[in-house]
Amino acid sequence: MADAPYKLILLRHGESEWNAKNLFTGWVDVNLTEKGEKEAVRGGELLKDAGLLPDVLHTSLQRRAIRTAQLALESADRLWIPVRRSWRLNERHYGALQGKDKAQTLAEFGEEQFMLWRRSYDTPPPPLARDDEYSQFDDARYADLPPELRPDTECLKDVVVRMLPYWFDSIVPDLLTGRTVLVAAHGNSLRGLVKHLDGISDEDISGLNIPTGIPLSYELDADFKPLKPGGTYLDPDAAKAAIEAVKNQGKKK
Amino acid sequence: MADAPYKLILLRHGESEWNAKNLFTGWVDVNLTEKGEKEAVRGGELLKDAGLLPDVLHTSLQRRAIRTAQLALESADRLWIPVRRSWRLNERHYGALQGKDKAQTLAEFGEEQFMLWRRSYDTPPPPLARDDEYSQFDDARYADLPPELRPDTECLKDVVVRMLPYWFDSIVPDLLTGRTVLVAAHGNSLRGLVKHLDGISDEDISGLNIPTGIPLSYELDADFKPLKPGGTYLDPDAAKAAIEAVKNQGKKK
Repeated sequence: MADAPYKLILLRHGESEWNAKNLFTGWVDVNLTEKGEKEAVRGGELLKDAGLLPDVLHTSLQRRAIRTAQLALESADRLWIPVRRSWRLNERHYGALQGKDKAQTLAEFGEEQFMLWRRSYDTPPPPLARDDEYSQFDDARYADLPPELRPDTECLKDVVVRMLPYWFDSIVPDLLTGRTVLVAAHGNSLRGLVKHLDGISDEDISGLNIPTGIPLSYELDADFKPLKPGGTYLDPDAAKAAIEAVKNQGKKK
Repeated sequence: MADAPYKLILLRHGESEWNAKNLFTGWVDVNLTEKGEKEAVRGGELLKDAGLLPDVLHTSLQRRAIRTAQLALESADRLWIPVRRSWRLNERHYGALQGKDKAQTLAEFGEEQFMLWRRSYDTPPPPLARDDEYSQFDDARYADLPPELRPDTECLKDVVVRMLPYWFDSIVPDLLTGRTVLVAAHGNSLRGLVKHLDGISDEDISGLNIPTGIPLSYELDADFKPLKPGGTYLDPDAAKAAIEAVKNQGKKK
């Protein structure tokens, strides 16, 4: 086992086709936009410039995170590192909201209900019907999962509960070997992980946004607690601007 | 354990920058050309059209094979499958020939010596100096390998010897679970594997060429012997044409 501090890098995927269209995405496997691809390449350049080179990659099973990692690692010249994937790093399942327009949902259900679904810790949206065109219940990539593990909707708390076993069982062992670990994932799976690392309360987590494409670096002590709470964005100015933009997402016309 | 037949797909990377320039490449980590990228995408389409969908991917540590696999899996909509990598699937190390022009090498050393280096089973080229600009001896991706495992040159026999442990220890166990296994690798690591699978003699292997970008499908019996010797190319006509082209490679002006 290597000594602390352990090096962890979190990377939220770049803009996806449905981010651009302002639709709830969740488990729907949409691709990156050209802008999202550029964000990913830039993320890799930031890693390279910082000399923060990942030794192992963990991703979700969703292409927007997988491709973000591929493009970032290509631009950081680390395409050859080992890759591990898990559905436990997937984006939050948005239930019946998947495929719905965010502004339209806001208008239809009102701000209170809208913000409850988007930001409350433990209120999931209504479940998505398994025969809905946007259900992934029967997708080949989840065929090895027992049906009771395949969600039809999730709140952030559900995400934390299903993500943490992967953190403890797969990511921590890689950190313990002294490897620099890159986790390329999603807004809510990463919010869940940051909540755990930084000990953020169920209430306060609603105010936390993680910008896309900007590596967030953590150094962790022997108890896997951050030396610096909140970690360090490799491009702090861009991160600050992007966090503001995410906050205004629901308000788009 | 699943029953035979086991499903194995071999995919040689598409055209690389140094294929296009007619240079010996070996362990030098060159990228795909645009043509090579298109070959990879087409390889994935062939898999998809044949309904032959990989459940797990094995690649070398070299970007031309890694990117070929990524592009093929993206076009086959299987980007999410597990990935395993090993230096044991790398291209043959071409020793002092790495970075040299093939036609120029042919002219300088004569056809007999040239063909001996290219096609004999057990005559490696002279070793590459470790301080040569094209040596990968100190590359970060091989840092975990004991120095005596890092080659300075290889003949095809050397490739077979270092590749087979990975076949037995990593690929066969995946086949045994009933998974369809995709191996995305290189001309000579795949020739070594085909030699083993089809029981080709040390003499006859010199005449075997594997075309780039065309999936080669094998069904293997319980002893991991091919049901059909030589396997099946998913685009047999293109494979035949490409095999002819590879044979004439050393003769380019």
